[in-house]
Amino acid sequence: MTKSIINERDFKTLKILMNLVEDLYSQIVREEIPHIKIPTRTKLNIEFDEESEVWVYGDRLSERSAKRARGAYQLLKTAYVIDFLKYQLEENRSSTLRELYYISEGWGKAKFREQQESDRLIEDLEIITDVQREYFHITPEEDGANIFGPIRLRERLRSGDTREFHCIDDVGEKGYPIPSNVDNLEFIEHDAKMVIAIETGGMYARLIENNFYDEYDAILVHLKGQPARSTRRLIKRLNEELKLPVVVFTDGDPWSYRIYASVAYGSIKSAHLSEYMACPSAQFIGIRPVDIEKYKLPTDRLNDQDIKALESMKTDPRFDTEFWREQIELQLKMNKKAEQQALARYGLDYVTSVYLPERLTEMGII
Amino acid sequence: MTKSIINERDFKTLKILMNLVEDLYSQIVREEIPHIKIPTRTKLNIEFDEESEVWVYGDRLSERSAKRARGAYQLLKTAYVIDFLKYQLEENRSSTLRELYYISEGWGKAKFREQQESDRLIEDLEIITDVQREYFHITPEEDGANIFGPIRLRERLRSGDTREFHCIDDVGEKGYPIPSNVDNLEFIEHDAKMVIAIETGGMYARLIENNFYDEYDAILVHLKGQPARSTRRLIKRLNEELKLPVVVFTDGDPWSYRIYASVAYGSIKSAHLSEYMACPSAQFIGIRPVDIEKYKLPTDRLNDQDIKALESMKTDPRFDTEFWREQIELQLKMNKKAEQQALARYGLDYVTSVYLPERLTEMGII
Repeated sequence: MTKSIINERDFKTLKILMNLVEDLYSQIVREEIPHIKIPTRTKLNIEFDEESEVWVYGDRLSERSAKRARGAYQLLKTAYVIDFLKYQLEENRSSTLRELYYISEGWGKAKFREQQESDRLIEDLEIITDVQREYFHITPEEDGANIFGPIRLRERLRSGDTREFHCIDDVGEKGYPIPSNVDNLEFIEHDAKMVIAIETGGMYARLIENNFYDEYDAILVHLKGQPARSTRRLIKRLNEELKLPVVVFTDGDPWSYRIYASVAYGSIKSAHLSEYMACPSAQFIGIRPVDIEKYKLPTDRLNDQDIKALESMKTDPRFDTEFWREQIELQLKMNKKAEQQALARYGLDYVTSVYLPERLTEMGII
Repeated sequence: MTKSIINERDFKTLKILMNLVEDLYSQIVREEIPHIKIPTRTKLNIEFDEESEVWVYGDRLSERSAKRARGAYQLLKTAYVIDFLKYQLEENRSSTLRELYYISEGWGKAKFREQQESDRLIEDLEIITDVQREYFHITPEEDGANIFGPIRLRERLRSGDTREFHCIDDVGEKGYPIPSNVDNLEFIEHDAKMVIAIETGGMYARLIENNFYDEYDAILVHLKGQPARSTRRLIKRLNEELKLPVVVFTDGDPWSYRIYASVAYGSIKSAHLSEYMACPSAQFIGIRPVDIEKYKLPTDRLNDQDIKALESMKTDPRFDTEFWREQIELQLKMNKKAEQQALARYGLDYVTSVYLPERLTEMGII
């Protein structure tokens, strides 16, 4: 088992967690009833911040206090979890949310009744400490996807060693798999002019095969449907640190618009992470209802779920713009949807030689 | 656009496809009604071959003949598809099943009505030619997963260049992503004694973090639930060419037993591919009902779907062994299931320091 000296970031994270329990401890010493304040996590306390264009928590705070048995148990569980996270940080270990839940089996009265409860406690800790759970060495169950394009990365491995990858020259056909904690990556150098985040594996492979990354100096990121945390964090960092424009290329249906929105604006569920993951400048280059007509794409009819999803978008503040209102109305009227791969009706090169260049030109990106 | 001289394998594949259309052509010249013979793809014509322990097609043949309009259209579509595959092989292009379906939009009367129809035609071609569709340059929509362990691979890229990867020394935290066509890989050298195929991403990460690959010289393959074609093909090749024993590590529920069965015996749907993908010597190292008791694992109750799935396993010839009959009965009696990550109840190291070594010893692998 590799054992390494605790690194600076882990040390900082540990200190934040320790402050939290020291606060609790000094409350007890001062003969106060121990308690923790945390932003209320109800829908009522989540706001769409117009300026930064992401979801954030409002001012409401709720208190976890040992005044009642239920609150006391919660603080007990919090202390156990922090103790476990301390072990992880000191020993350079990591675990999934699921493992954490099972680990608690040995904690007697602090045992979680179901995984939802431990998941939520970790999210609470993210909110209280303003630190992403990856920094606690809690790794996602879900896989990040792959990226391909003109950028050289340095990955810090668990051993503390680093390894460099150029995401064209040092990778295979599938590209470079995004690690669990994207903040273990350093961007060394790049020749990229844009980031294209792509919904389907088929289209990701298409843009690689057609050398689009090379011709347009594009970093291709596979979203794999609704993107994982690590994928969103990577896109955010490419946008923020390298000042690269981001476009999101999806199918033309409401589920895909939601994929775009989760990249651009984040979600209610992860409002506390918007700062790290949301990328409000990301633009939609997926199939718009207007493109279905313009490019005469093969379509399917909307089904009941599609229609319901489009209707509910009308009250979603993330889609409360003239552009989206128009597109939603148009799609409901047309009663049609189209997939990104439908562009293949004009041949395998149409997407890279016609569709994307036209859209990127319209957007002023090329 | 890179254009390369057609390689030997593509040339061979092209020839097989050309023979097929030349047959049709000479039937016409001889004034016969053009037709193709193909094994009947109904359940009645699929047998579990006791000797090789995989699903295979029986002797029944059906004929696609131009005698009737429907058959004539099918032969027309077949000719168009082969023409498209010829283009792909000659020009070194590739596409997904979905793209192929959309490509047919431009084929007039040979246009497919739905994707199921074109998918099926490609499967027919696989059966008739005994060539996997990856050789036609039809790539899967679904992603393969990642591998990690003591093996050096050489990947042939589309450009014809090759690139080498040692799956510990030349990869990041997530390992090496399996390419679409695993037959583009060459195994250069390895120090492995076994292959462990793992259901969840969390457990795959656990075995990497705990250095299990190093201590036990194991190649770790992430199955990501029901494994993709490329993942199954890779496992098969590691088993067959390197003579490595394969163990499949999953949760303890009927869905996971099916994952094991698909690695080991293949599925009815892909009976024609058993030869390339099924790995009948693969052993189950996942959580058995007997392990739930032995290791006192945290459990959930079986739900109605679980019970139904277990009941239907009783008539599945793949599970018609003393071992599985006993385990199915035991699980129904216990009315419990457990996840592989439940082993974390004894700490993060229990799975690698106790569970897997005990099971591997029982199996005679270590």
